[in-house]
Amino acid sequence: MDLDLMRELSVKTDSKIVLLVLDGLGGLPMQPGGQTELEAANTPNLDSLAAASDLGLSHPVAAGVSPGSGPGHLGLFGYDPLHFIVGRGVLSALGVGFDLGERDLAARINFATLDDSGKISDRRAGRIPSEKGEELVALLNEKIQLDDAEVTITHEKEYRAVAVFNADGLSGGLSDTDPQRVGLEPLPVEPADDSAKKSAAIANEFVKKANEILENEHPANTVLLRGFGMYPALPSFEDAYKLRAAAIASYPMYKGLARLAGMDLLQEGAGIAGEFETLKNSWDDHDFFFVHVKPTDAAGEDGDFERKASVIEEVDGLLPQLLELAPDALAITGDHATPARMKSHSWHGVPFLLHSDYTLPTSSAFGERACAGGSLGSFPAEEIMGLLMGHSLKLNRYGA
Amino acid sequence: MDLDLMRELSVKTDSKIVLLVLDGLGGLPMQPGGQTELEAANTPNLDSLAAASDLGLSHPVAAGVSPGSGPGHLGLFGYDPLHFIVGRGVLSALGVGFDLGERDLAARINFATLDDSGKISDRRAGRIPSEKGEELVALLNEKIQLDDAEVTITHEKEYRAVAVFNADGLSGGLSDTDPQRVGLEPLPVEPADDSAKKSAAIANEFVKKANEILENEHPANTVLLRGFGMYPALPSFEDAYKLRAAAIASYPMYKGLARLAGMDLLQEGAGIAGEFETLKNSWDDHDFFFVHVKPTDAAGEDGDFERKASVIEEVDGLLPQLLELAPDALAITGDHATPARMKSHSWHGVPFLLHSDYTLPTSSAFGERACAGGSLGSFPAEEIMGLLMGHSLKLNRYGA
Repeated sequence: MDLDLMRELSVKTDSKIVLLVLDGLGGLPMQPGGQTELEAANTPNLDSLAAASDLGLSHPVAAGVSPGSGPGHLGLFGYDPLHFIVGRGVLSALGVGFDLGERDLAARINFATLDDSGKISDRRAGRIPSEKGEELVALLNEKIQLDDAEVTITHEKEYRAVAVFNADGLSGGLSDTDPQRVGLEPLPVEPADDSAKKSAAIANEFVKKANEILENEHPANTVLLRGFGMYPALPSFEDAYKLRAAAIASYPMYKGLARLAGMDLLQEGAGIAGEFETLKNSWDDHDFFFVHVKPTDAAGEDGDFERKASVIEEVDGLLPQLLELAPDALAITGDHATPARMKSHSWHGVPFLLHSDYTLPTSSAFGERACAGGSLGSFPAEEIMGLLMGHSLKLNRYGA
Repeated sequence: MDLDLMRELSVKTDSKIVLLVLDGLGGLPMQPGGQTELEAANTPNLDSLAAASDLGLSHPVAAGVSPGSGPGHLGLFGYDPLHFIVGRGVLSALGVGFDLGERDLAARINFATLDDSGKISDRRAGRIPSEKGEELVALLNEKIQLDDAEVTITHEKEYRAVAVFNADGLSGGLSDTDPQRVGLEPLPVEPADDSAKKSAAIANEFVKKANEILENEHPANTVLLRGFGMYPALPSFEDAYKLRAAAIASYPMYKGLARLAGMDLLQEGAGIAGEFETLKNSWDDHDFFFVHVKPTDAAGEDGDFERKASVIEEVDGLLPQLLELAPDALAITGDHATPARMKSHSWHGVPFLLHSDYTLPTSSAFGERACAGGSLGSFPAEEIMGLLMGHSLKLNRYGA
């Protein structure tokens, strides 16, 4: 999306946009001749909405490339995921709900095992239980003191944690310490250029002091650092689109991604029904709503076709509540496909439905193949925000 | 469109291309479940042509963005409308048939009303009638003398006119004097950089002298200037495609756009039938013909679904005359959508039909939804010239 063009053409209006993201919505048949999860699900409300909507298949990032949650959502927000990079460390920090700021440098931590010769014998410290991981994180937070930065470690799960360094003049241009193989020594953190020298020194000091503290904590007697990244400076929705945007999401990582785009975070109730309730209660205060539904992706990752279809059916049952609010433009899509058949994110086209007063409907069903034949055809996910802005009449004409 | 690639691969041949543009062709159903203007029109000739053609939906400029006539046509001609900018003043000058040249700086003029305190009380001078506007333009042309430039004012309609400044070293990097609101003083013309200082001085001198001349012409006692722009240096069709191109258009703005691309302007007879007659009579003298049909857009702007459909039917009735000429490649499309439902230009996909000896037909109807399922799918309008060059066998193979 050309954000300069959006800045130039966008105008504040009273019209309202909803972007409903069913994480990992796209799917595949479990065998040739079969239906996808969305096609198999019984979705009378989505189907009748499709009969008054534009349909298409949206494509994140690049052909054949399976996106992570970060790039997937950046694309949906209209930010080129190949230009705006959100590092693994930053995503981890957002994922644990860390209130990341502009001076913050984040990195992913793995607890790991060093043998007597100083070589890595286990990159995951025997997959220590979460209780042990929490205990070690508390120990590090209590004891570690760096000369030139504050550091805060937050536990994720089992052997995984995230470190956030806070100081002036930090940089994310740093190499990983994890050599990605056992039998090798951990690598020193190397700066990509002079501007990262201070950060590299801080990170190496951190590893050295952590090793001293963890010396007797075998198998978790060292830490490996990777995915260094600064808080990314994304344009805000206010800046790019003149939108007062809000996010309704139940998982910290998606809240964090929305906050990077300058969205207000709304308190959501329990489950998908609670999210829809929050939407209704906050309707007057914003003109853009990002609503994130997680369980479709989780079911896909588990390879559970039936559960993924039933989550879609749950959303279908709640849809009339959303439609009662009468958004001027409503998109229903995913950030990527997570076919149960693959048990992972994939590169496939993602079903996309856009409802407004100005559509060219082509099908009375919402499904991958109906979308492939839709009036939007196959298109980059990055164009979704432009479409929503157009359909809600928030863009001036380009040129005379 | 990669014009360098076109320059490299294009060859002069005897084959002939026709680009028939039905302005604002794209449409929408007036209500869900309905047909578009093109789908509803009775078009036996277009439909049987579709059965021997490639179909697709072409997209101008960017997702969600409604193009003006300038960007819409630049795209059709293969020129990136985000790179080649045709300012409002230039389009107005082209629209009144001004023979714009490379030293010319054009600006749109509004006659307006200043109150006693020097503030704008009416940005349109009470919408003075066209006769009054003409009279004032004649007065200005008679009396105004600038120190460093020639200036020619041409009346458009009512309170609107266009000024063209002619001198060496002019620049379009100038701000508007129109503050866009009443109750404010007109703004001075500010140069974007040093290269525009001379132009700014000329424009400000023009406003000062016009104010003196118009002093007693209340309500039209001042002029507001906006949309400054130099004659844009577009590559010519001869340069980019090695085509001897001609334009058949009845409105000055489209003639002007074609002339910017180096096309010869052919005299057209009356109405659409007259344009088709001109095409026949000029067939031997050129190898590319841009034929512009305006009334589809005008009907769409008026919200007149039936009239728009009947203009399409008129073109359908004339189509056999065009097909008798046996163009090697014939494209029928619009520069953008103008759905009667919206009474304005819109961002929607535009039906596109390409007939040649080398097509992959998918439908025996020409309509938006047939095009959505066509062999060309959804594609950028900028690719149309490449397709026409390919289908008329005017491009060498790329690489061995």
